[in-house]
Amino acid sequence: MIRTLAAASLLAAAPLAAQSIPSPDKVAALRDAALKGDQYAWDITEGLTTEVGPRLAGTDDEARARDWSVRKLTAMGFANVRVETFDMPVWVRSRESAEILAPFPQPMVIAALGNSASTGPEGLAGEIVAFDNIEALRSAPDEAVRGKIVFIDHSMPANQDGSGYGQFGAPRRQGPTLASKKGAAGIVIRSIGTDHHRNPHTGVMTFNDGARPIPAGALTNPDADQLLRILKRGQPVRMKIVLESRNLGTRQSGNVIAEVPGRDPSLPPILVSGHLDSWDQGTGAVDDASGVAIAAASAKRIMDAGRPLRTIRIVWFGAEEVGLFGGLDYRARHGKEPHYALIESDFGADRIWKVESKLGDARKAEAEAIGKALTPLGIVTGSFTEADGSDIGPMLADGHPGVGLSQDGTRYFDLHHTPDDTLDKVDPAQLRQNVAAWTTVLAILSGGIEEPKARKRR
Amino acid sequence: MIRTLAAASLLAAAPLAAQSIPSPDKVAALRDAALKGDQYAWDITEGLTTEVGPRLAGTDDEARARDWSVRKLTAMGFANVRVETFDMPVWVRSRESAEILAPFPQPMVIAALGNSASTGPEGLAGEIVAFDNIEALRSAPDEAVRGKIVFIDHSMPANQDGSGYGQFGAPRRQGPTLASKKGAAGIVIRSIGTDHHRNPHTGVMTFNDGARPIPAGALTNPDADQLLRILKRGQPVRMKIVLESRNLGTRQSGNVIAEVPGRDPSLPPILVSGHLDSWDQGTGAVDDASGVAIAAASAKRIMDAGRPLRTIRIVWFGAEEVGLFGGLDYRARHGKEPHYALIESDFGADRIWKVESKLGDARKAEAEAIGKALTPLGIVTGSFTEADGSDIGPMLADGHPGVGLSQDGTRYFDLHHTPDDTLDKVDPAQLRQNVAAWTTVLAILSGGIEEPKARKRR
Repeated sequence: MIRTLAAASLLAAAPLAAQSIPSPDKVAALRDAALKGDQYAWDITEGLTTEVGPRLAGTDDEARARDWSVRKLTAMGFANVRVETFDMPVWVRSRESAEILAPFPQPMVIAALGNSASTGPEGLAGEIVAFDNIEALRSAPDEAVRGKIVFIDHSMPANQDGSGYGQFGAPRRQGPTLASKKGAAGIVIRSIGTDHHRNPHTGVMTFNDGARPIPAGALTNPDADQLLRILKRGQPVRMKIVLESRNLGTRQSGNVIAEVPGRDPSLPPILVSGHLDSWDQGTGAVDDASGVAIAAASAKRIMDAGRPLRTIRIVWFGAEEVGLFGGLDYRARHGKEPHYALIESDFGADRIWKVESKLGDARKAEAEAIGKALTPLGIVTGSFTEADGSDIGPMLADGHPGVGLSQDGTRYFDLHHTPDDTLDKVDPAQLRQNVAAWTTVLAILSGGIEEPKARKRR
Repeated sequence: MIRTLAAASLLAAAPLAAQSIPSPDKVAALRDAALKGDQYAWDITEGLTTEVGPRLAGTDDEARARDWSVRKLTAMGFANVRVETFDMPVWVRSRESAEILAPFPQPMVIAALGNSASTGPEGLAGEIVAFDNIEALRSAPDEAVRGKIVFIDHSMPANQDGSGYGQFGAPRRQGPTLASKKGAAGIVIRSIGTDHHRNPHTGVMTFNDGARPIPAGALTNPDADQLLRILKRGQPVRMKIVLESRNLGTRQSGNVIAEVPGRDPSLPPILVSGHLDSWDQGTGAVDDASGVAIAAASAKRIMDAGRPLRTIRIVWFGAEEVGLFGGLDYRARHGKEPHYALIESDFGADRIWKVESKLGDARKAEAEAIGKALTPLGIVTGSFTEADGSDIGPMLADGHPGVGLSQDGTRYFDLHHTPDDTLDKVDPAQLRQNVAAWTTVLAILSGGIEEPKARKRR
């Protein structure tokens, strides 16, 4: 995931009037049924990760994921199932390895960062110049860096709210450009992750300000620890990195969309979302199969209960990981249309611990009703003037209303963007709590559910 | 590690007379000082894993480890530091990968088992035939297996005493031979491990009974889970494995030996040991840098305290992982010589929870004194007729006396034989508890320590 916090409105959307709030008993019944028995979310998470597996943006794997999704959402009974395609540049990794050449020869485990230059099969060898953090690199003279392989360390903590990722992710986001501008031959960073396994964390970066692309990779945390120990011996350290990759040029990605049609199609829809693409080394179970699953499962539970007043639109965004292409395409097509609320799940499937919203003063009663209805799930109510999301971030920043359901992120960055992001990391009980929370929010926002008429008995 | 339990004497060694037991106060003082402040074991573990790294038996890496060890043990002040070399066959891995070809194409993570046949760079593709366990493969007709890639599952539990490894390790030890004899083209097993990470567990196996070597690899637990899910869909599953490896022929390995000379060189020595070699993908921190460190650190602590009555012999065995070559060489050279006790650390560095011994009836008082002195470290006393170890296993089985200090193995098989066996997995506090326990045992077995005469003051 990439996070965009949208506290401020950059573009005023038309204010939306409040609507009546369904009875707490009806909402609670839907919530508790989801908590007790939801299978839809597990079914989608298991199916997508098993039958498609990794699905890097713009690749044939992601195209297979779209086909799978259209079949799945159609089979679940949703309406208007469709794909909105868009073009995007595609980068793919191939072989990668790293080794210390001197003073203590030994292999290391590395992954290329997205958009890394390729070393070619012969690799790149050079002396390591190490920095404790991005600021130390920023203030280093070019002479100290020129022709060398930069290593940037950091000390990212595991926080429940995931706040370490923004602050401590700078080595990945800005490090390659900085190193390149100073004349470095390549760059390796400590993985932007909180685990202690030999699984490197990849992630996207771009070379800005005209910086020449250079090879850029992430070492695992144990390898970064080892490199530091070797550096502390005081001898020059030479490393060889092989990071082969290719730019495939422009390829197609797309957003998969499906709907629960509202009784009044003229009303702005509620958008529930996650992203369909994943990084290429895991199966993207927590990032973000579980997210698309939670969004669709909660919409399905409302659909099973009856017809909501307003339409619920499910969007499974394409190409999030590599630059929010899906979110930006949706915004370009639909960003001027009113939406009643935007919600996205892109932070794993551990329990939701906080709800925030940005529905506007006129809808404070709705926001408060949501908080109250979520309390039995152990969810605290936070801000009424903030909501966040990755693909929906730009539209939230434009001024669209939104709700943010925050998962516990304590172990999220153990898995994020690694080969370890696999189905066994999803806890079915916590996944159900997520669906229960989302179902609760949809029950309140959807303007009342008209139950199906009882079938005639024969 | 490879474990050999030696409850029975196959060859009667000369019974050894009991000796006087040092005062409990002196033993307790040595124990508590180690628990509080030992740095020797960390220093060795950190140094060997950092300055040498992986050290596969028979390779240049293991030779560098021997050189490092001789320098280190000499610098620590031990006497008679030497290497006893021996020849052994050497197998090394190179490139390895796996992928599902159909019905759901996706990559998997695999490692070759030691002595696997090489697929060559073109790899091996075939249909998977799956078995729940080794017995199911054993009873399968050859026609069901012929020309296919066998997959064997199992359900190894994490136990404190590590007992899952013996029982549930059969797919690795016997699976390849069984599969080959039934005409399989190759075999993949669920890693013999208890973790949920994408790091496969390698380990040695041999093709017995004239079985033709075939490619044999271990999938990670998450990949084995995924393969089962794919198989459950009911369609034929085709996999491609690339397991490149080479047999380098006969190469040299060796045991590194050092001593704390006893006051009476005619007395049988106490042997304290671990193994110097490691698997090639991690740095062998828990298997077995910490083991050789614990053995040497406890001997060093006795040496610091004064001169023991009998010699303490440190042996850092070579080539344990690939077939106990070091232990068997030591036995061939010294197995007829009496030893007062054999002790080995080869089960990580988590806290020792149990002591067992096989010192004979005449030395029951010694064995009981050991149990009593270890109680303050939270260690329970087990059998007086058993001791175990990997390299020392054959000599224990021959009838030599021994002491077994059992580490808590609950998380050992999360790391064992994987890239994840790195220094960050060693807990310095638990490592000190190990050294304290070993120092206690040596203080009791060494026959009394003569403290150095006070230096004359000028």
